[in-house]
Amino acid sequence: MITTATTLRDQAQATRAASRRLAAASAEKKNSALLAIAKSIETNSGMILRANEQDLQTATEVDLDFQVIERMTLDNARVHDMADAARKIAELDDPIGEVLETRTVSNGLQLERVRVPLGVIGVIYESRPNVTIDIATLCLKSGNGVILRGGKECFATNTVLADLAKDAIDTAGLPREAIQFVKSTDRSLVKEMLGMDDSIDLMIPRGSADLVTFVGDNAKMPAITGGIGVCHTYIDGGANLDDALSIVVNAKVQRPTVCNALDTVLVHQSVARDFLPILASEFATHGVELRADRRAMSVIDALKSGLKVSPAKSGDFGTEFLSLIASVRVVDSIDDALDHIGRFGSGHSEAIVSDDSEAVERFLDEVDAGAVFANTSTRFNDGAEFGLGAEVAISTSKLHARGPMGLKEITSYKWKVRGQGQIRQ
Amino acid sequence: MITTATTLRDQAQATRAASRRLAAASAEKKNSALLAIAKSIETNSGMILRANEQDLQTATEVDLDFQVIERMTLDNARVHDMADAARKIAELDDPIGEVLETRTVSNGLQLERVRVPLGVIGVIYESRPNVTIDIATLCLKSGNGVILRGGKECFATNTVLADLAKDAIDTAGLPREAIQFVKSTDRSLVKEMLGMDDSIDLMIPRGSADLVTFVGDNAKMPAITGGIGVCHTYIDGGANLDDALSIVVNAKVQRPTVCNALDTVLVHQSVARDFLPILASEFATHGVELRADRRAMSVIDALKSGLKVSPAKSGDFGTEFLSLIASVRVVDSIDDALDHIGRFGSGHSEAIVSDDSEAVERFLDEVDAGAVFANTSTRFNDGAEFGLGAEVAISTSKLHARGPMGLKEITSYKWKVRGQGQIRQ
Repeated sequence: MITTATTLRDQAQATRAASRRLAAASAEKKNSALLAIAKSIETNSGMILRANEQDLQTATEVDLDFQVIERMTLDNARVHDMADAARKIAELDDPIGEVLETRTVSNGLQLERVRVPLGVIGVIYESRPNVTIDIATLCLKSGNGVILRGGKECFATNTVLADLAKDAIDTAGLPREAIQFVKSTDRSLVKEMLGMDDSIDLMIPRGSADLVTFVGDNAKMPAITGGIGVCHTYIDGGANLDDALSIVVNAKVQRPTVCNALDTVLVHQSVARDFLPILASEFATHGVELRADRRAMSVIDALKSGLKVSPAKSGDFGTEFLSLIASVRVVDSIDDALDHIGRFGSGHSEAIVSDDSEAVERFLDEVDAGAVFANTSTRFNDGAEFGLGAEVAISTSKLHARGPMGLKEITSYKWKVRGQGQIRQ
Repeated sequence: MITTATTLRDQAQATRAASRRLAAASAEKKNSALLAIAKSIETNSGMILRANEQDLQTATEVDLDFQVIERMTLDNARVHDMADAARKIAELDDPIGEVLETRTVSNGLQLERVRVPLGVIGVIYESRPNVTIDIATLCLKSGNGVILRGGKECFATNTVLADLAKDAIDTAGLPREAIQFVKSTDRSLVKEMLGMDDSIDLMIPRGSADLVTFVGDNAKMPAITGGIGVCHTYIDGGANLDDALSIVVNAKVQRPTVCNALDTVLVHQSVARDFLPILASEFATHGVELRADRRAMSVIDALKSGLKVSPAKSGDFGTEFLSLIASVRVVDSIDDALDHIGRFGSGHSEAIVSDDSEAVERFLDEVDAGAVFANTSTRFNDGAEFGLGAEVAISTSKLHARGPMGLKEITSYKWKVRGQGQIRQ
């Protein structure tokens, strides 16, 4: 049945009711539902791949960008990865019911701060169909209902995946309404969702900067800001330049289309002459286009064959490239680097390469970002790499959760207070 | 100098810059600033009381409500309480720099999750002038800059208090711009503040439900929802009725104008006949007007002299009375009580009175509120009563912080990641 504005509101109310049952579900029951989802994905991989074929055919017809097609394409291995991801979430500790703090007040009141689910989470996402399963399973484990609205390019694939997940949790004795999928590509339903603050507690946008901004501006409920990373790596005067080269190249080329990939290299003037020519050559072998400020240009032989170096324009700083482009600037000091990052960074992932521990500690202390790295690649800003399990998003908000958002980051808490007749004086 | 839209933006930028210095300030420095504020309040109590006299004179001329006048009135004791509150905050542990979590990942990366300030907090509040000092000192201790916009009824008092606080932190070597006070009663500046998401990280409204809603609807930055408490106390069939009486009376009359005061009593049908006539009498001696549903009416002798009992209208449930009025309903079961609270509660403070531990645990588990109480008064939902020190607000949001917000609840965190050249595969 196609979702309309009316059925969406009904669905959301049903999810709200189901979320109350889910909040009280045991870890065993939630885990058996997660394993049922994993099994169903593998059993029905043929159906999933056929739906994906259909999406890919439409994508080719409407001539979608090759990066989008790469992200939306499933094969047997990727389907098994989805099932494995669900199994891994089953293995994680259940966050719900955890006692975060206990206190006994002088009048004898006993206080307990206990972790509880947030309630219902809305997710609006693009491209990757594995997001459907990742988010549905994280919400299930954390006792939250979820309403999923995927991109239209993967509509057939996402529909099949969501139906399989709903059937699986039903089999495991949990309410199928705990997972809802918006079965329509009508964009007006997104606006509708963003107004449903009576039934959705938190909205998570996963996709382009435009999507994140749109959700942030229009959601009546709280929304996570995230996924926009203008990421810098600062090569300090005290850097080991071999490490610097491999870290910068990794941060730029290992997966250039994601939010924690490098955008700008800042190089201390004392090492610019040694480092930049090598960096330009290495970038060239990886097909990276370099946009250099005046001082960086002056130490790179831009005419050398094979190099793709051009003078940076003002817009090349503070831009998330999401492709094989990087900008570079020479700075006089760590203060200049910190100022540049304070001005142009998005609070996502920032790195320093240096063997000077004083510079490292200053950088770690003073850079205001979700994750600050010393002598390693910004690409590590990721829930799985941090050992938190899968993630629903990487937040650049400072409120609630910052950096990778795993299970605990989509929970709340409440105070339970037990008395013996105490009254307030 | 009177604040205008332009100077407000400049002030906020100055506070943003000052907040960076404050974030790096030592606990010793922040504590000496707090003690300097306390001392200055006591030394200048004459000036504070004269300013308050001026506000009270205006309030009387424009015929403000007696409750408002009660809240805004200072005397010597209340001035000393303000100074004491600042000293108490100096005694609390510094939350900033606390390592919340450490992890070493299999590739050797060392992760540290460290508590940091939020940045700059905006507060819009009404009536009570002690809020100026409470909030300024909590923000100072937690390393946050603050921009205060108090109610126009206390403009003279708040202006003096804010100036004393700014002077005091300056003396202690911290930037005076870390505390800003909007020196204007022009309401358009409130809208201006709510649009300054580039310089204010979090907005906290303290005051009427209208103010909280207005801030929530119009703030471009995240805002705390809180301070609206539609609070229920459920008298279970297994309740000790002596305890029930003293708890309900305390919750209603000890301070009826605040958010954690009782609004509605739900009474299990098995004890209604024993409990309600006594409750009605006791309420009458405290001047409480009772609005009773049909079943409650039928067991109270409404014609008995001195009772103020009338039939409840539909609007009497789900209403925050903030005065000596309470509604009462007879319910058939704990399920009915839970349903009623789910429908009419505001997620603030809810209580059960019962000696039946099964009923108590069900209530504590299933009621979705910031604080859920068993056998005690909802009036205890308060940062100081919970032993958290002073509070900036009582949040009914489920995101970020829930219930009393003390020092830790106005902080964020960041990940510090230390590597030795690791790159992502």
